[in-house]
Amino acid sequence: MSRTAAQLGAVEAAADIRAGRLSSEALVASCLERIALREPEVQAWAWINPDQAIAEARARDREPVRSPLHGIPVGIKDVIDTCDMPTGYGSPIYDGHQPAADAACVAQLRELGAVIIGKTVSTEFATRHPNKTRNPHRLTRTPGGSSSGSAAAVADHMVPLALGTQTSSSVIRPAAYCGVVGYKPSFGMINRAGIKFLAESLDTIGVLSRTVGDAALLATQLAGISWNPAAAALSRKPRIAVCRTPFWPLADAAMQAALISAADRLKNAGAELSELELPAMFADMNDLQIAISSYEFYRALSHERIRHPGLLSASLSARIAAGGKVSRSDYEAALAATSRCRTWIAAAFAGFDLIIAPSAPGEAPELSNTGEPTFGLMWTLLQLPCLTLPCGSGPTDLPLGLQVIAAAGRDPDLYDGAVWIEQQLAR
Amino acid sequence: MSRTAAQLGAVEAAADIRAGRLSSEALVASCLERIALREPEVQAWAWINPDQAIAEARARDREPVRSPLHGIPVGIKDVIDTCDMPTGYGSPIYDGHQPAADAACVAQLRELGAVIIGKTVSTEFATRHPNKTRNPHRLTRTPGGSSSGSAAAVADHMVPLALGTQTSSSVIRPAAYCGVVGYKPSFGMINRAGIKFLAESLDTIGVLSRTVGDAALLATQLAGISWNPAAAALSRKPRIAVCRTPFWPLADAAMQAALISAADRLKNAGAELSELELPAMFADMNDLQIAISSYEFYRALSHERIRHPGLLSASLSARIAAGGKVSRSDYEAALAATSRCRTWIAAAFAGFDLIIAPSAPGEAPELSNTGEPTFGLMWTLLQLPCLTLPCGSGPTDLPLGLQVIAAAGRDPDLYDGAVWIEQQLAR
Repeated sequence: MSRTAAQLGAVEAAADIRAGRLSSEALVASCLERIALREPEVQAWAWINPDQAIAEARARDREPVRSPLHGIPVGIKDVIDTCDMPTGYGSPIYDGHQPAADAACVAQLRELGAVIIGKTVSTEFATRHPNKTRNPHRLTRTPGGSSSGSAAAVADHMVPLALGTQTSSSVIRPAAYCGVVGYKPSFGMINRAGIKFLAESLDTIGVLSRTVGDAALLATQLAGISWNPAAAALSRKPRIAVCRTPFWPLADAAMQAALISAADRLKNAGAELSELELPAMFADMNDLQIAISSYEFYRALSHERIRHPGLLSASLSARIAAGGKVSRSDYEAALAATSRCRTWIAAAFAGFDLIIAPSAPGEAPELSNTGEPTFGLMWTLLQLPCLTLPCGSGPTDLPLGLQVIAAAGRDPDLYDGAVWIEQQLAR
Repeated sequence: MSRTAAQLGAVEAAADIRAGRLSSEALVASCLERIALREPEVQAWAWINPDQAIAEARARDREPVRSPLHGIPVGIKDVIDTCDMPTGYGSPIYDGHQPAADAACVAQLRELGAVIIGKTVSTEFATRHPNKTRNPHRLTRTPGGSSSGSAAAVADHMVPLALGTQTSSSVIRPAAYCGVVGYKPSFGMINRAGIKFLAESLDTIGVLSRTVGDAALLATQLAGISWNPAAAALSRKPRIAVCRTPFWPLADAAMQAALISAADRLKNAGAELSELELPAMFADMNDLQIAISSYEFYRALSHERIRHPGLLSASLSARIAAGGKVSRSDYEAALAATSRCRTWIAAAFAGFDLIIAPSAPGEAPELSNTGEPTFGLMWTLLQLPCLTLPCGSGPTDLPLGLQVIAAAGRDPDLYDGAVWIEQQLAR
């Protein structure tokens, strides 16, 4: 049976659109068909209007091609403002809230000719408290959070691309649990005007997709980075450092085995492998991330915690209260310690091109929680570009993720390396 | 003639409120009376509702004192969201726009018991294009921008405190032109959730006030910094570096003389003075700031430039277009050059506690433009805490400002030093 248009990746679909073999309308219609079929079970969408999406696609089909994203449907995490779709930030406080403007990234996507197909479910204010979305691979499991709907929609072939945000592990974890690619760029790469801020020194807009090339396409178009996917068939094999991280005991046996096995395969494929042992100070990094983020979101969510305390989940209320207890001097000490770790890791990158590490502790857990951000916190705090790739499966045959990390600001190196790793793991 | 309540500073008024000598209602009523008298000429306010302000003040008077800001009226620059007052971002695109939530800083101020008295006029999206406000010292002159209304309202005794924002020189310049204190904290000190972003790597929330102590009170309460104003009667005299900056020729003769004269007075008062000669690379800093900020606001204002181009001023349209021409690699190169300057200046602070420099090229120019940000750009880009103090007057008897700058994150040192300088200049 031939593939439906909804099964195409963004790069493939864009090539078909440019060549006149596919219309944006046909592509969007195929995605909407998949959504109609699966949404009652997966519940990836906070808001979608098929007529509006089709009208947008038809408008694109009447125009010259604006960019390599022309006509491509994109899902937008519901903590990112849209001027023509309600934006609920994953909280009942904002049920039906209609922003006055598009977030910068959404306006830019429209300018590039992408079709904003709908809003994907976020956890409550992009924190851990789960919302309605289920893991498309097994409906009794979480898709992960906080970019729950974006990961589930992309994994379920409802849309080739979706935007997410990451403050702790909110792109990497759901992507790993749903068996797709999740990419958190270097801090500051995609403009954040118009997102609901949670912790402004950490919040990063990221991409969910089914291939490395698709994620890179969206991010490079938004940031104006030139990267040639064809050149990514690396002439030089990457130097890869395997990093178990100080949190290795928190990864389950399947995840540990998956990392070690992936490292072996990459070595056999010609990569230069090494082990990265982090100094003792890195053992504090998850605690530092929690101190910094909770200090910030106590402040960022001031309106909500003061005016609508009864509409916050118990778990978020507890985390906000904890954030209120982090003193300014503790916060500043955490920033200073972070700065030392950033300096160390920047220097360490002289010895390798990429780090590989676990993406999550293991398979997606039950629906009642969105899983642990354990393996995302440190890299987010370090502001490094990270990408998770599907990497085998766990004891109950659900996906595991391999996280690939590059030096700060070296996102094109990450794409090159991750494309190569993706090819090796697919063999 | 005795002073009206509106003429009190925030620290003074708060002490009177705590001691039961003054009610918030009487204070707010006095401010509203001043506003009723002067607003037709000064036009500092984008939105104000006297009944609502009085109702808020009465509510505070019925409660126990929540903080040292209890009952104190504060004006909020109209690029900062308020849930109960329209927020127009200084642009006709957002005429009558009503945000769903308070910005974090506004919600925190309310929590501290401050009375949000109204919205102060901003230039268009906090850029340079002027709005209606006039300089209260001479109505044919600009109050400066972009925090035009905040500076004018504070200078004209309409309110003791107002919030502003600075991306280039938008707190320092209007404060200098209006003869008040303007304080731009270290980057990241006051949480930015809920402001209209212009250039997110630079945008900083700041304070306009009539004394250093008042500005420090507001900022320390918001950030949770402990600073004891009484202890600021320094036991040790500050080590002060006089920095003419690479832009010295752009300061007029009066401003140059004011800086040199202030330095002499501070030296005679016992400060340890030195000259800070910046290395050649600092000569590029204003151009770097312009490249970085325009790259970012081309993106941040994507919705507006795409959907409402006809409602943007010609000058902003031109700046946005220029921002669209800054390539990603130019942007990254500018960030890298900035990073080198930050490292240099951080080390230089070993030799002194404070830098003093011009706040603006001279007196406030005519109403048709908001003046040049020349002496703000570099310090904003360096992310250093800066404060301007009134420092003599220019050829037509309008105020000049002395800028005081401390090391990144050392805002309490800035308060200590600026309080001492304020005392010396008042002698």
